[in-house]
Amino acid sequence: MHTIDSIFKETELIKSFAQNFRRHPGQVNGLLEADAEILKLNDTNDEYLVLKTDGIYEEIKEGLYQDPYMIGSTGVTAPLSDLAAVGAEPTVILLSVVLKKNEDEVWLKEFRQGINDACSAYNIYVAGGDTNYDDFCSISTTAVGFIKNRKPMLRKGMKPGDFLYSTSFLGLGNAFAYSRFFDSSFQINYLPQARLKESLFISQFVSACIDTSDGLFPALAFLSDLNQIGFDLDVPLNSLLHDDAKSTHQKAGLPSWLFMAGPHGEYELLFSVPAEANEGFLNHATIENFQPVYIGKVTSGIQLNFVSEDLKISCHPAEVPNLFYKANGNIQTYFKLLMEQHKNWSSVKSEV
Amino acid sequence: MHTIDSIFKETELIKSFAQNFRRHPGQVNGLLEADAEILKLNDTNDEYLVLKTDGIYEEIKEGLYQDPYMIGSTGVTAPLSDLAAVGAEPTVILLSVVLKKNEDEVWLKEFRQGINDACSAYNIYVAGGDTNYDDFCSISTTAVGFIKNRKPMLRKGMKPGDFLYSTSFLGLGNAFAYSRFFDSSFQINYLPQARLKESLFISQFVSACIDTSDGLFPALAFLSDLNQIGFDLDVPLNSLLHDDAKSTHQKAGLPSWLFMAGPHGEYELLFSVPAEANEGFLNHATIENFQPVYIGKVTSGIQLNFVSEDLKISCHPAEVPNLFYKANGNIQTYFKLLMEQHKNWSSVKSEV
Repeated sequence: MHTIDSIFKETELIKSFAQNFRRHPGQVNGLLEADAEILKLNDTNDEYLVLKTDGIYEEIKEGLYQDPYMIGSTGVTAPLSDLAAVGAEPTVILLSVVLKKNEDEVWLKEFRQGINDACSAYNIYVAGGDTNYDDFCSISTTAVGFIKNRKPMLRKGMKPGDFLYSTSFLGLGNAFAYSRFFDSSFQINYLPQARLKESLFISQFVSACIDTSDGLFPALAFLSDLNQIGFDLDVPLNSLLHDDAKSTHQKAGLPSWLFMAGPHGEYELLFSVPAEANEGFLNHATIENFQPVYIGKVTSGIQLNFVSEDLKISCHPAEVPNLFYKANGNIQTYFKLLMEQHKNWSSVKSEV
Repeated sequence: MHTIDSIFKETELIKSFAQNFRRHPGQVNGLLEADAEILKLNDTNDEYLVLKTDGIYEEIKEGLYQDPYMIGSTGVTAPLSDLAAVGAEPTVILLSVVLKKNEDEVWLKEFRQGINDACSAYNIYVAGGDTNYDDFCSISTTAVGFIKNRKPMLRKGMKPGDFLYSTSFLGLGNAFAYSRFFDSSFQINYLPQARLKESLFISQFVSACIDTSDGLFPALAFLSDLNQIGFDLDVPLNSLLHDDAKSTHQKAGLPSWLFMAGPHGEYELLFSVPAEANEGFLNHATIENFQPVYIGKVTSGIQLNFVSEDLKISCHPAEVPNLFYKANGNIQTYFKLLMEQHKNWSSVKSEV
């Protein structure tokens, strides 16, 4: 029916590089167990220092990101979304920037404006940074924040029976990538925002949280690998699509699941609420005027069940995300593999 | 006699990119006023959060650094040296690494070993990081630490009459660069260490501090620009040279001052002690078995006086460091400009 890939290639890659480094005895999260690094430096109170380095690199190199304002803004948003995913409040960022030699002054101005506007929106500050010069631009940002008088959210902690939600509709990241790489007639506005406010609210209820910066399916693959659980997405994927993704899905005739495949996501928070906390969560959400998007349930079986139009699929959670690594990161090859996957799934269905 | 460059190009470049970013109200240092970023987050005690992002980028790109162990180790040392220069004690680092696609496993192992050994030596931990893949390697490290119950050291605060010291002999960074770019028959061991222990001791006495990661003259140019002071290096530069720099100076027949020109330095701390604190400083240094290297005195006139062999030079502190920018960062051109500068100075002398 379909090949089972029981190891998520992304975690394998990260572990092969980082798993033997010295870890701080006060670090709450093990490797890959949270979106950001959480350190308890003081025994006497419930305060955590939270750190995260994240960057915009391949996105620029591959031509996915070109607009300087968006690059600056998203360079700030990327690690802040990770702070949001653990429930931290950010304080400052440090910027490690590589600029193109003799870059156009207008370009630089818009890049700086994107950084500054994002900082204003999040009410944070640039504490410092480091600038290098090369043939193309990149930005690596370290966000620093705190969690006070609350427990941090981890990726770890999901249990079978938990309800799965996201902070908003999904698929925008992939829709944007499709418009940039395959059909420039689609105009997709992509300027993601870190869900810091929502984070503070949901942190009272969740069993685990991750952001969708890599897309829904890669996020689920991380959670599955770490918690040894699976997912039953018992609403049609189509109903989870962001408006722009839905319209791309319809006009381009692409299956809904393709917009969940990653690895380019949209920085929503994906989180689980234990069954016994679900009613309280929904009641409080209504009071707060927050509308979480219900996605499905956590299962004990390690599989991903979803419905994309007339296809009802059950696959390993890593199967789709691994295609990107099978394609060696080549976008054209990856898209081909995704379409082949769709054809395989469709042909199996027609045999039933 | 010589052209006056009253603006240090390096500070001009940094300001043009970073001077309009939002700064945290609790940040102790203004832009360029300290080697690391110092934040007072709490009014009630004398505790500072200290942050610094620094990287190894051009050094690898230009072929100056090739040994993976040294790249890993120095990638950790670079921002820790900045923490040392403000008197902070480091806690954790975050690594933002770009690896060569399909890098050799032995290379990666040595790179990781360099990182891990440096962390062990400094008793710090890797809290997390970010890995990207490209055609060549680079490493950007964010160091996080604290200053408790002490005042931070800044670059700002130097006064005419202060005594100038470094934690050890200088010129190793430039000697290493010379051996790599111009004469591979010189074998220079270069594995710099952050002066964290010395930092805690000197912080009781200093008026200002900076590290020599860019070399002595660029460090002096920063200090001059910021404090509107100059320097009278009243000992022969030759006597300040690290043994390996001295031997390169002798065998290659290069003037001593060339080894202070930067921009590749050696991560010593360069610091000033007010005249009235000098005796106490020296007495305590003797007790601690610490041997600071006396370099000269801070002057009210904005110039750099030094003696290199039979040359007695008085120039603007930014004059030599700016040659690197005049050469547009090209090493061959830069070396040519340095030698021309030496010829000019020598010819003026012979006319006297």
